[in-house]
Amino acid sequence: MNDVDFDFQRESRQGFPEIVFGEGKSVDQLLRIAEELLEKQQNVFVTRLDPDKAAKIVSTYPDGDYDEVSRSWIYGDLSKRKREGRVALVSAGSSDRFVIDEAARTLKFLGIDSHSVQDCGVAGIHRLMNRLPELDSSDVLIVAAGFEGALPSVVGGLARQPIIAVPVSVGYGVAAGGETALRAMLTSCAAGLTVVNIDNGFGAALGAFRILNLKYGYPKS
Amino acid sequence: MNDVDFDFQRESRQGFPEIVFGEGKSVDQLLRIAEELLEKQQNVFVTRLDPDKAAKIVSTYPDGDYDEVSRSWIYGDLSKRKREGRVALVSAGSSDRFVIDEAARTLKFLGIDSHSVQDCGVAGIHRLMNRLPELDSSDVLIVAAGFEGALPSVVGGLARQPIIAVPVSVGYGVAAGGETALRAMLTSCAAGLTVVNIDNGFGAALGAFRILNLKYGYPKS
Amino acid sequence: MNDVDFDFQRESRQGFPEIVFGEGKSVDQLLRIAEELLEKQQNVFVTRLDPDKAAKIVSTYPDGDYDEVSRSWIYGDLSKRKREGRVALVSAGSSDRFVIDEAARTLKFLGIDSHSVQDCGVAGIHRLMNRLPELDSSDVLIVAAGFEGALPSVVGGLARQPIIAVPVSVGYGVAAGGETALRAMLTSCAAGLTVVNIDNGFGAALGAFRILNLKYGYPKS
Amino acid sequence: MNDVDFDFQRESRQGFPEIVFGEGKSVDQLLRIAEELLEKQQNVFVTRLDPDKAAKIVSTYPDGDYDEVSRSWIYGDLSKRKREGRVALVSAGSSDRFVIDEAARTLKFLGIDSHSVQDCGVAGIHRLMNRLPELDSSDVLIVAAGFEGALPSVVGGLARQPIIAVPVSVGYGVAAGGETALRAMLTSCAAGLTVVNIDNGFGAALGAFRILNLKYGYPKS
Amino acid sequence: MNDVDFDFQRESRQGFPEIVFGEGKSVDQLLRIAEELLEKQQNVFVTRLDPDKAAKIVSTYPDGDYDEVSRSWIYGDLSKRKREGRVALVSAGSSDRFVIDEAARTLKFLGIDSHSVQDCGVAGIHRLMNRLPELDSSDVLIVAAGFEGALPSVVGGLARQPIIAVPVSVGYGVAAGGETALRAMLTSCAAGLTVVNIDNGFGAALGAFRILNLKYGYPKS
Amino acid sequence: MNDVDFDFQRESRQGFPEIVFGEGKSVDQLLRIAEELLEKQQNVFVTRLDPDKAAKIVSTYPDGDYDEVSRSWIYGDLSKRKREGRVALVSAGSSDRFVIDEAARTLKFLGIDSHSVQDCGVAGIHRLMNRLPELDSSDVLIVAAGFEGALPSVVGGLARQPIIAVPVSVGYGVAAGGETALRAMLTSCAAGLTVVNIDNGFGAALGAFRILNLKYGYPKS
Amino acid sequence: MNDVDFDFQRESRQGFPEIVFGEGKSVDQLLRIAEELLEKQQNVFVTRLDPDKAAKIVSTYPDGDYDEVSRSWIYGDLSKRKREGRVALVSAGSSDRFVIDEAARTLKFLGIDSHSVQDCGVAGIHRLMNRLPELDSSDVLIVAAGFEGALPSVVGGLARQPIIAVPVSVGYGVAAGGETALRAMLTSCAAGLTVVNIDNGFGAALGAFRILNLKYGYPKS
Amino acid sequence: MNDVDFDFQRESRQGFPEIVFGEGKSVDQLLRIAEELLEKQQNVFVTRLDPDKAAKIVSTYPDGDYDEVSRSWIYGDLSKRKREGRVALVSAGSSDRFVIDEAARTLKFLGIDSHSVQDCGVAGIHRLMNRLPELDSSDVLIVAAGFEGALPSVVGGLARQPIIAVPVSVGYGVAAGGETALRAMLTSCAAGLTVVNIDNGFGAALGAFRILNLKYGYPKS
Repeated sequence: MNDVDFDFQRESRQGFPEIVFGEGKSVDQLLRIAEELLEKQQNVFVTRLDPDKAAKIVSTYPDGDYDEVSRSWIYGDLSKRKREGRVALVSAGSSDRFVIDEAARTLKFLGIDSHSVQDCGVAGIHRLMNRLPELDSSDVLIVAAGFEGALPSVVGGLARQPIIAVPVSVGYGVAAGGETALRAMLTSCAAGLTVVNIDNGFGAALGAFRILNLKYGYPKS
Repeated sequence: MNDVDFDFQRESRQGFPEIVFGEGKSVDQLLRIAEELLEKQQNVFVTRLDPDKAAKIVSTYPDGDYDEVSRSWIYGDLSKRKREGRVALVSAGSSDRFVIDEAARTLKFLGIDSHSVQDCGVAGIHRLMNRLPELDSSDVLIVAAGFEGALPSVVGGLARQPIIAVPVSVGYGVAAGGETALRAMLTSCAAGLTVVNIDNGFGAALGAFRILNLKYGYPKS
Repeated sequence: MNDVDFDFQRESRQGFPEIVFGEGKSVDQLLRIAEELLEKQQNVFVTRLDPDKAAKIVSTYPDGDYDEVSRSWIYGDLSKRKREGRVALVSAGSSDRFVIDEAARTLKFLGIDSHSVQDCGVAGIHRLMNRLPELDSSDVLIVAAGFEGALPSVVGGLARQPIIAVPVSVGYGVAAGGETALRAMLTSCAAGLTVVNIDNGFGAALGAFRILNLKYGYPKS
Repeated sequence: MNDVDFDFQRESRQGFPEIVFGEGKSVDQLLRIAEELLEKQQNVFVTRLDPDKAAKIVSTYPDGDYDEVSRSWIYGDLSKRKREGRVALVSAGSSDRFVIDEAARTLKFLGIDSHSVQDCGVAGIHRLMNRLPELDSSDVLIVAAGFEGALPSVVGGLARQPIIAVPVSVGYGVAAGGETALRAMLTSCAAGLTVVNIDNGFGAALGAFRILNLKYGYPKS
Repeated sequence: MNDVDFDFQRESRQGFPEIVFGEGKSVDQLLRIAEELLEKQQNVFVTRLDPDKAAKIVSTYPDGDYDEVSRSWIYGDLSKRKREGRVALVSAGSSDRFVIDEAARTLKFLGIDSHSVQDCGVAGIHRLMNRLPELDSSDVLIVAAGFEGALPSVVGGLARQPIIAVPVSVGYGVAAGGETALRAMLTSCAAGLTVVNIDNGFGAALGAFRILNLKYGYPKS
Repeated sequence: MNDVDFDFQRESRQGFPEIVFGEGKSVDQLLRIAEELLEKQQNVFVTRLDPDKAAKIVSTYPDGDYDEVSRSWIYGDLSKRKREGRVALVSAGSSDRFVIDEAARTLKFLGIDSHSVQDCGVAGIHRLMNRLPELDSSDVLIVAAGFEGALPSVVGGLARQPIIAVPVSVGYGVAAGGETALRAMLTSCAAGLTVVNIDNGFGAALGAFRILNLKYGYPKS
Repeated sequence: MNDVDFDFQRESRQGFPEIVFGEGKSVDQLLRIAEELLEKQQNVFVTRLDPDKAAKIVSTYPDGDYDEVSRSWIYGDLSKRKREGRVALVSAGSSDRFVIDEAARTLKFLGIDSHSVQDCGVAGIHRLMNRLPELDSSDVLIVAAGFEGALPSVVGGLARQPIIAVPVSVGYGVAAGGETALRAMLTSCAAGLTVVNIDNGFGAALGAFRILNLKYGYPKS
Repeated sequence: MNDVDFDFQRESRQGFPEIVFGEGKSVDQLLRIAEELLEKQQNVFVTRLDPDKAAKIVSTYPDGDYDEVSRSWIYGDLSKRKREGRVALVSAGSSDRFVIDEAARTLKFLGIDSHSVQDCGVAGIHRLMNRLPELDSSDVLIVAAGFEGALPSVVGGLARQPIIAVPVSVGYGVAAGGETALRAMLTSCAAGLTVVNIDNGFGAALGAFRILNLKYGYPKS
């Protein structure tokens, strides 16, 4: 008997397949889900997969691709589906990498190009200024920051693109957990920023996908 | 002497002009700002303008357009700038009107069409199902809800468009102030939702503008 | 000397026996309580019993029944007490299993039937719609959800039964700990939902018991 | 044109009609809703209706019944629908009256009997002990309390009925707003309590309705 | 060189010596403090001493007395200082033991008698009623409770003695950490309760000491 | 019919009569309670009585004694019951007066002497040092402070008496509402402080009463 | 009799006199304090004085100087005490004026020059860049901002002076009350920022005074 | 390829070099940053470096200086840059050492003298009084405290220097995490205190640096 009722209609309904949230699922459940998807010739993408569980899954599917920083696992041939559009992943510092990389991996799974624009922290604003041309050549900006989360405000006042701000749970004291960055992004003086949950690189990538799908009109799978 | 350093470069930089946040500004300050803008042949849009202050401004500029529900004031000829694109304003009930109307007024000021899809509360889900075709014909969905803020989750699972969720400060007990709706939207299981501050119809509209500008490539003013 | 003053009168007073909360109790205390209950020919049910302590208890009582997912231990012959009534355990996803299973085990201990209706997350609403007949055949619905906790709102607008909503501490960022799901359930637009503490599958089962006892008038033990 | 999409199917779906939440609705909207309902020969019940708005509605419908303490308005002939079942409304003190009365009015609108068991605060526990027989003769107990919200815990350890606990926003300092009472009720040691939002007498009554409907099988309207 | 400036004047100023808070101090620091105190012929009492550090201290002072439940260490001859007065340590259940025992150990160090009155949880109120005579024979009541923290309210309505309520960090969901119990105790309807920090058995004992010192006029050391 | 179930047994049970909490009670309810108490030859004390309601009560009972700062009303002849014991009411500044005065009025009603020791804020510590003899001559110290609530910590390190700390809702920014002062008092390094709810001068006085009753053994009324 | 124990030694101890916090003090208390100070030939400065109370004080002291925006009252001849040093008051927008002006008034009372650098919000970063020379010519920077409070981060990365950040209670939704700005400033990536309470222009000015006093060595009064 | 965009201009812009935040950076990243800095003949200072990572770095750079209490690593010859000025590091107890030491190490790296004034807790205020001359001889006071955080208030009322208050995450119950100390410091009655993030000894040192730089006019590097 099968205890998983997977949403196989999502791709035709929304253009992107259901992606598996790895946290709180057992290795058995994950393997069963993978098996079902593969039977239907679908690629598999699992997020929030910790290294212990990943090791067991990799031993079953040795040609899958697990990435430790983003804690995500991809199985399948991604070369077939390349989509138009380009996303810039802007961040304050190297501590935000795990979130930026989750976004990058999600976009890769969806067939979309992204590039990273790192070390743009507002305490040295000239570094961001030097990177503005890189931002200008992108369709959508995903901007991640921990601590006081000020980077999206400054980017938001300079760029004209859609901006998705991602608060990161980096910092200590009142920054711990990312709530301060989240609140700062929600109350930004820069008009038209939108925000996703703390550390939600995955959600930011999907938000970007919806926007790119609107612009480029991706063919329905 | 002038004590206001208005950001007149914003429109050429970002495609939308600086909009005036009315709260915490005196009538004198607001009138001075309006005068400056009009000298430069710009239209004026003031948000969060309470009726008392509005009455004084209307008496100086009787042909301006003040709206009590959205608490916003528009001055200028909006007919010249019509832009492509269509935004659906989806809401759970009539108590969310003040937020929806702020979004609608902001879009109107920016020259963009919007239409309201009301009374879609999830406690009577069939009502939303009946309105899906209306959603399908829109480029961007702005979805507002107070109380438990569940509407964007359901819409987010059905629609493929970019969705900007707006929590509304409607409700009592633990719903008071809109924090519950905000948190629910940020943690939605529906992938790719993005969120703005509580009651921030204005910000949702600007977020939609950035997306539409990406798709339609509005000419620079 | 005995340092435990157990409430042996509860069953005659309320229809259900005192159930042992395992957290914060030492193995010694738990064994002493079990001994006392067994001397009085009562079955034993311990909740929130972590596997380390359980191992020691199982080694003393090898024919008891420990379940790892629900972290609960049952000792005694449950076949004698079967009670009327049927409870549906509705949940969004497999990450909610530990809570659903605590409810199921509690109901089993009390002699009541339950069945699980899983993978009904609101981001794929058609899955819930397909399961409505299953809900209709139940007396009481226990609905568990983590993240934004929207499932009880949707179920609450469709079903006529008593509904006990259980927030689950599944999720990250502002969902972490289950507070967001709790607040969403308390502020649901669906009328007549009632709510229990985060992860409290046990309490939800007892709430269902009180309701079934009212309907079926269980004989006093 | 009509801007309200009322859920007229709720009564046949769930056994109780849609009830109007008065807060945040204008008098015009409320009158329009009333008119629609009356055209369909339905009774009208509006909650959270403040006295100013009520005065205007009463002047249009002078034979309606507005109650200041519960801030609710009933219009229609309630004599036709009497339903079986009896609810006890238990409270700590007279400051909880506005919540208790909202529950009583809602039950009255639904055709169900209730009776009040007041002044049972736990600081004088003998008073509650004296009232136990009154509780015993009821199907469902709604127990309201502000401050530390301990009353449902004590009642929950004595009674066998379904209990719906309602935190009340009475108190000062850390009791202000009712959050302390809410949290105390959710974490009660008394098994099987369920809880509704702060001050939500309406929701408690609907919760009781669902339970009574299960027991008595009210005929579908 | 000595880097500790111990408050040796406290005993003459306040009747009780400075007691050492073990958390966050290294074993070296603790040994140095002990040495200094013993040079001055003072007994030593260390609270919040975790077992690892205790093991090292016990190996240096093998005739000291370490207690694992209360995590406290006493060194010295307590037989010389016996003081009048009697404190009852009332608690809801065995999970509160670590707090009750910290109070008991502190009182023991100060030369004061205490006795435990356990398993008085309000969900079985008859158990407390049976223990009232024990309470009556005490000068001061220390009442500890986790979860909803209702026990001090009920005791506070029955007893005439000074009552010091201690919230305990036992419980899960919204009870986790003890904040709910703390807030419930601070807002108790029972008049004249006073409260100490969460898990602060030590502080409750010192509070009792101040009261007993007032009554019995302990001789100054 | 009488809808109030007053706890007339409290005085014989606990030594102090039930005192009426005025907030949330209507003038009618208050008058009915007063009438009942006076029929039984008891004095009346109402706390948290706002001036508007007080005016109506004073017009019915012109020889009662209403105090605007403490918002309390006393009716009856207090000269008959004088009790031993002396309480010092220590405070940081004149903004704390409304709390100090509520304590003073409550003590007066109970027949106990108090005296005020004001303007002892820790930012000018010499002022407190000058007042130490006044503290020494008191049985119990009630210490009130708003803002950072540091005064009880300093007093607690100097005095040997029982100390009841009262946080006051004076201050702005993160001090607003008194929560900061409350938390500071609960976490004081000075051993043996106990704390009551924010602004709870009444509760502090009752706490002092319990202590004085222990010392002086007030005759039972 | 005098019930105020003013700290007249503060000026000789710390270089600045005690300043009167007007909130929560009655007009009578304020007049008595003023009288006492004037008898000692001291100037008077009252902060947080609302217009109603100010009107009464002005009618007694018509040559005092009340300012509505900063809600502060100065009485005395300030021309005698001019001190070296210059403070820049940097802010994001005109809504922060009430805080900036409180700082300016406090500095004026202390004999120190300040100048305002307004409209530097980070959403239009070029405006701040244009003002850098003005900042360079100042000893200390007081930087105020509401909403996401990002301005001090950017200034803190550009300027070498001591910076005192002041969060302002301007904004709505999660910005309301200034807590978000406070947290953002405390967690700034710009090193060496220090922060004062929300809206505390007064405290920022005193912080600047301490720094200037260190540099210029103001003569003791 | 180099993925780090270090802010090498900071020292010339602000007088202090960029300092490396070790948390969340991998050993590889840290080594690459060190290499780059050393190529440019700059000293290296890494904060928040846990012992595991430090061990690997020390094995590469055996002549660097790692300190376990402050968790910081210094590499380079500090003897060349000695700067004028003296900072006192005042603290309540030995549990605050890790924060005080981070400040001391940061100042050492910057070439500035500091000295520690320990064990000044307000519960034994005479100890602080004895140390006042030590404070008087310092330019800037950094005052650290956990629990109720009252020490800066008392110091702030006695000293005339600039004071930077550092809340420490020491304590349990409502003190846990340092939020109570933070809030107490922000709301201090002592005028002109400024505050940094919880446990932020580094930031306090940089704040002191800015002040000393203002006074002594350090030559630009």
